Amino acid sequence: MHAPHFTTDASSNGIRERDFTVGGVPGILWSPASGADRAPLVLMGHGGGHHKKHPAMAGRAQRLVTGGGFHVAVLDAPGHGDRPRSAEDEREIAALRGAQAAGEPEGPIVVRYNARLAQAAVPEWRAALDALQGLPEIGADGPVGYVGIGLGTAIGVPLVAVEPRITAAVYVCTWPDVLIEAAQRITVPIEFDLQWDDERIPREASLALFDAFASKEKTLHANAGMHLELPRFEADSAVRFFVRHLGGAVAPAA
Amino acid sequence: MHAPHFTTDASSNGIRERDFTVGGVPGILWSPASGADRAPLVLMGHGGGHHKKHPAMAGRAQRLVTGGGFHVAVLDAPGHGDRPRSAEDEREIAALRGAQAAGEPEGPIVVRYNARLAQAAVPEWRAALDALQGLPEIGADGPVGYVGIGLGTAIGVPLVAVEPRITAAVYVCTWPDVLIEAAQRITVPIEFDLQWDDERIPREASLALFDAFASKEKTLHANAGMHLELPRFEADSAVRFFVRHLGGAVAPAA
Repeated sequence: MHAPHFTTDASSNGIRERDFTVGGVPGILWSPASGADRAPLVLMGHGGGHHKKHPAMAGRAQRLVTGGGFHVAVLDAPGHGDRPRSAEDEREIAALRGAQAAGEPEGPIVVRYNARLAQAAVPEWRAALDALQGLPEIGADGPVGYVGIGLGTAIGVPLVAVEPRITAAVYVCTWPDVLIEAAQRITVPIEFDLQWDDERIPREASLALFDAFASKEKTLHANAGMHLELPRFEADSAVRFFVRHLGGAVAPAA
Repeated sequence: MHAPHFTTDASSNGIRERDFTVGGVPGILWSPASGADRAPLVLMGHGGGHHKKHPAMAGRAQRLVTGGGFHVAVLDAPGHGDRPRSAEDEREIAALRGAQAAGEPEGPIVVRYNARLAQAAVPEWRAALDALQGLPEIGADGPVGYVGIGLGTAIGVPLVAVEPRITAAVYVCTWPDVLIEAAQRITVPIEFDLQWDDERIPREASLALFDAFASKEKTLHANAGMHLELPRFEADSAVRFFVRHLGGAVAPAA
């Protein structure tokens, strides 16, 4: 087992931020600055084209750390953030840009690209979880959750399907096509966000993915609005979801 | 305009509870026991076969008063609670019980029955709102919300469609069949709860009702579970929804 190799350590506004690598994969760990006690860990998978410190990640991490007292870890996905792109990554991204520019369907390209990245990312996440659970403030038997956005959902559905240590997950919808089978193997509580007027992902396909989860407790939050218009109150809802399922204490929203 | 005629007045656990009648219709008003300041008003419509003080109403009222600082009013629906049943009510209820006992579809009976009650209840609610807004602690220009459960949704959709003083609504799903047209005239923010595995109301019909609301801000909360298994955390979500849209302050859950 690799221990996380920490490269930075800074605290501000009550949040401790540490860059690390595990087996060469760069990540970030946000924690309560005050906390010496153990706290649950929430893993977050960033969206396609984003990276571990994208504002969508930093903003959710801030809410999870200050609102729930959680540790929050994000890894750069393969070919994202501080990681090099392969020739195949470059070809796929060029094909995607080409399809978008031509007004052609992007779904088939994104689905193929995300599925390839997920295959690489799932073992990286499991190794990172091994390493993070070696830290005394997280521990080997503490509760673990997962939040995925877009690509982070494409990685997180197969990850949670095979990783019994993750006991609750929030997914912000991505192209659901190849995820149904993995979703059918997931039984932990799920909160699933989709945009009702998504101009890129077909509504029926997203509803079918929600339907596929075998979880006894699952909640769909469908909000009016387009692909990029997920309301910010859903990030607060995710904090409450993890407080319910992982434990922790909700502080009033800032 | 009728003023509300108060018949009881008692306070306990920080909540003031007053029975009243308006134009002969019995209702209940729950308020913060401490409050002399004006606060928003939330109207609640109870479910079929229930009444104004049913635990589903009292429990939500407790959360709304202590969590949001709101006033909460419930009226007995026609033929419910302290109100007499007409011969037509008795016939419909007998038909419903017969269909349920025989395992025949109850939907057509419920839809017809609810629609008839709604026609009577909408003007009753508007008169009650006139009266309640005459109270200094509510006021004529304060924000007003509506919560409906089942029959309360069948009444509340046509009510909100014609009542501009109601600026936010939470609906727990009912048979949606005859509500589509009224929903299409509603533009205020909506939170809409349905049960994903509802054994009585078809999922596709409920999704079509959510789709019909013309509201720019609307959120569907679909939870795994059967008709009567709405999770309690949705009652807390409704409090936060009204705090966002009517103002008020969320206290931590008890």
